[in-house]
Amino acid sequence: MTKKASSSSKETDSKPDNDKFVWTRKDLVGLDELSAEEIVHILDTAQSFQEVSTRSIKKVPALRGKVVALLFFEDSTRTRMSFELAASRLSADTVFLSGKGSSTSKGETTLDTVRNVEAMGVDAFVIRHSQSGAPHLLQDKVNVPIINAGDGQHEHPTQALLDIFTIRQKLGTLEGVRVAIVGDIAHSRVARSNILGLKKLGAEVVVVGPPTLVPSTITAMGCEVSNSLDDILDQVDVINMLRIQFERFASNLFPSVREYSSLFGMNSKRLAKCRKNVLIMHPGPINRGVELTSDVADGPNSCILQQVTNGLAVRMAVLYLVSRGRE
Amino acid sequence: MTKKASSSSKETDSKPDNDKFVWTRKDLVGLDELSAEEIVHILDTAQSFQEVSTRSIKKVPALRGKVVALLFFEDSTRTRMSFELAASRLSADTVFLSGKGSSTSKGETTLDTVRNVEAMGVDAFVIRHSQSGAPHLLQDKVNVPIINAGDGQHEHPTQALLDIFTIRQKLGTLEGVRVAIVGDIAHSRVARSNILGLKKLGAEVVVVGPPTLVPSTITAMGCEVSNSLDDILDQVDVINMLRIQFERFASNLFPSVREYSSLFGMNSKRLAKCRKNVLIMHPGPINRGVELTSDVADGPNSCILQQVTNGLAVRMAVLYLVSRGRE
Amino acid sequence: MTKKASSSSKETDSKPDNDKFVWTRKDLVGLDELSAEEIVHILDTAQSFQEVSTRSIKKVPALRGKVVALLFFEDSTRTRMSFELAASRLSADTVFLSGKGSSTSKGETTLDTVRNVEAMGVDAFVIRHSQSGAPHLLQDKVNVPIINAGDGQHEHPTQALLDIFTIRQKLGTLEGVRVAIVGDIAHSRVARSNILGLKKLGAEVVVVGPPTLVPSTITAMGCEVSNSLDDILDQVDVINMLRIQFERFASNLFPSVREYSSLFGMNSKRLAKCRKNVLIMHPGPINRGVELTSDVADGPNSCILQQVTNGLAVRMAVLYLVSRGRE
Repeated sequence: MTKKASSSSKETDSKPDNDKFVWTRKDLVGLDELSAEEIVHILDTAQSFQEVSTRSIKKVPALRGKVVALLFFEDSTRTRMSFELAASRLSADTVFLSGKGSSTSKGETTLDTVRNVEAMGVDAFVIRHSQSGAPHLLQDKVNVPIINAGDGQHEHPTQALLDIFTIRQKLGTLEGVRVAIVGDIAHSRVARSNILGLKKLGAEVVVVGPPTLVPSTITAMGCEVSNSLDDILDQVDVINMLRIQFERFASNLFPSVREYSSLFGMNSKRLAKCRKNVLIMHPGPINRGVELTSDVADGPNSCILQQVTNGLAVRMAVLYLVSRGRE
Repeated sequence: MTKKASSSSKETDSKPDNDKFVWTRKDLVGLDELSAEEIVHILDTAQSFQEVSTRSIKKVPALRGKVVALLFFEDSTRTRMSFELAASRLSADTVFLSGKGSSTSKGETTLDTVRNVEAMGVDAFVIRHSQSGAPHLLQDKVNVPIINAGDGQHEHPTQALLDIFTIRQKLGTLEGVRVAIVGDIAHSRVARSNILGLKKLGAEVVVVGPPTLVPSTITAMGCEVSNSLDDILDQVDVINMLRIQFERFASNLFPSVREYSSLFGMNSKRLAKCRKNVLIMHPGPINRGVELTSDVADGPNSCILQQVTNGLAVRMAVLYLVSRGRE
Repeated sequence: MTKKASSSSKETDSKPDNDKFVWTRKDLVGLDELSAEEIVHILDTAQSFQEVSTRSIKKVPALRGKVVALLFFEDSTRTRMSFELAASRLSADTVFLSGKGSSTSKGETTLDTVRNVEAMGVDAFVIRHSQSGAPHLLQDKVNVPIINAGDGQHEHPTQALLDIFTIRQKLGTLEGVRVAIVGDIAHSRVARSNILGLKKLGAEVVVVGPPTLVPSTITAMGCEVSNSLDDILDQVDVINMLRIQFERFASNLFPSVREYSSLFGMNSKRLAKCRKNVLIMHPGPINRGVELTSDVADGPNSCILQQVTNGLAVRMAVLYLVSRGRE
């Protein structure tokens, strides 16, 4: 694993020299299609860029003069900000389109919107869309790179990559690491992308939640299923708590927040039964007192804010690789 | 027609040297007041900037350190993005004000809002407003340049300029070119600006639509009127299909979308009756199946995406000329 | 008072050399905690930066590579634009989060939102919040500087600083200057911050308004109270008209706009009774015909637009000092 990104921020190109591997993909739409080697290359590139964020001047000129279009057909504050800052650290310009008030609301198709923005000469797309598969449908129809920033219930590859990056950073490897993913597995693109990536890198995954939220077919992805958080506490190195999306309660998938929390919430009592250095993770934004209590969220096992920090480096890496990795 | 914009993007000023003509206007509020020579100068300057968009680093330092304020009292995604990217390619910073949630909603007059932003030291305004004439009212009251990005049913000069640029690019000239503009002529600022510009450059214009949408008084602008698209198909070099604004159906100006589309929509059957190299244009966003069918929109005669690309160059030219053309 | 900010905009650091004083604060949350010396230092630094705004290229590299996060949990167009442009003139990048559609609406606490953005590696926060005291609560919980851009009915320090800067610019001193603040004193963070700052610099303050809007306890802040604007017209050097927030009329604090305006609105008749060079100020956006008539707002005594211009310099100074003043 190399670590470069030169210290002179001004004129150096700061192309990371992970030179054993050549990136060949135009797009990053999901972890499903990536090889283990490609995932590791993204993580290594992210590690190269990590150092940029510790500088006084947090910029490298790698994408100077390039334009990254952030097309958020579905709203997201933190993912948008993370990509925006990642682009900015690479010296790219960004242009933002939100689902609300966009041409889409004037009856334009998503494809026409994307092709129009492409015709304006942008160099990469970051696309969030409420429809599963939207980035896949678009990727062959436009010539510039597409990065999936979350599509429906399908994939959220950069979130999984930053989760995996954080585990590797803390534990040194993914090989043989046991990861629990807790919550609404059925509807979670974060869970799907995590399972795909973790399995490829040799980790073991157990998904945990009530039967209504954990489809038994998920075992086909190579993970174990448990309906009891208490049962697996002392068997895992990482517990990744998914965000509860309260709008789903109306659909009777959840009995009540209180019951969910008492069965599947992380608290100090449960933490005491975990392995000593267990990592507590959460993709955010957290509902304090629901998925986890404040003492756990802010405690020494939590790496929630570290995930956010790592997200920048991972997104810099992905933006860099799809834009310039093939050069 | 000169073509410069130097190839070194870094320190050269890249002022286009269309040196036979000196731009004298502070503002671009409409094509009505421009001479043919001024319009040609904008087109030539746009052609100079076209090359910038093909570079790896798509930036020239022409407006470095300048601030362009985008005041969109009326919403627009694509025009806003086009101006924002055009400013960015000239190395200008942008600041954006949307009609929603702005001071205007606190009871402030448009003039006060604009004067306030001027007092913040911005260097140019791009203004879209739902009221016809708003930019004209403002232009003598502020000292910095104003570019009209669409005002009510009045003018949308940069849209017309990019349409005309595209025709000149494809056909080599405007002189004697016959252009049909099809749709809701009565309420269209795009139609008005196109007619004004096309006539000044020697083109012939025929406006086409149902009698409710084509006022007979429009002949005073020097164009012919037809209520039948089929009648003029083989008589024109360009067909510019206006966007149908569905909210107008409620006002009984349209019988029904289906009827409109059957009479005034472009499809492969109608295209077959056109001149062989007829240009099919549309200002976007398009309603597929209404103004034109997908095979026409995506077919070889369509230059809809080329219009979008050219919009960048035209807006770079306009921003450049009002900001620095008088130097 | 030094005046530097070097004339070469490119590579000079343009750190103002007000070298008698060393800024020590991480945050600017209110004028309450500032000493007179600190306030004067901000004003002097602003004066140093004032010159930047008159340049052709209005940028200095002071905060190049830094990121300023604008977190507007409460909407504001002009304050947001002013900070955004101030950051841009210091070559900082900005990232914006609006209260609407943010993670806050997903149930996240303000503190979690702010800590998350901090974890993305931003260098300073500009925070507007509808709750009084929000920036104070946050300041010890995050490591990066926080600038209060208005919190509830508590403080709006940069507005007061730009008001005080404008008075000093026009009158040369604050010592002994008599300032009337007119309007809804009880609910105004602008009034509170002005009173605090003005008193510290030796000015005298009289607050003017109907008894329902001027609490008698305000005299504890060291200012006089008057319920008659006419009574004090010839006794003051400055009249700062507060914006009437119409939503308060519903709460019966105001009798009617007409009555308010007739008693507490500034007009040419009242202006004739004022001292000859009285300064008429208003934080904007103004309600013409309510707080003041157009002839007064646009007349020679008005320095309303000058306030807006000065706001840029003041905000550049504050951004600079909290980011780099301690170096």
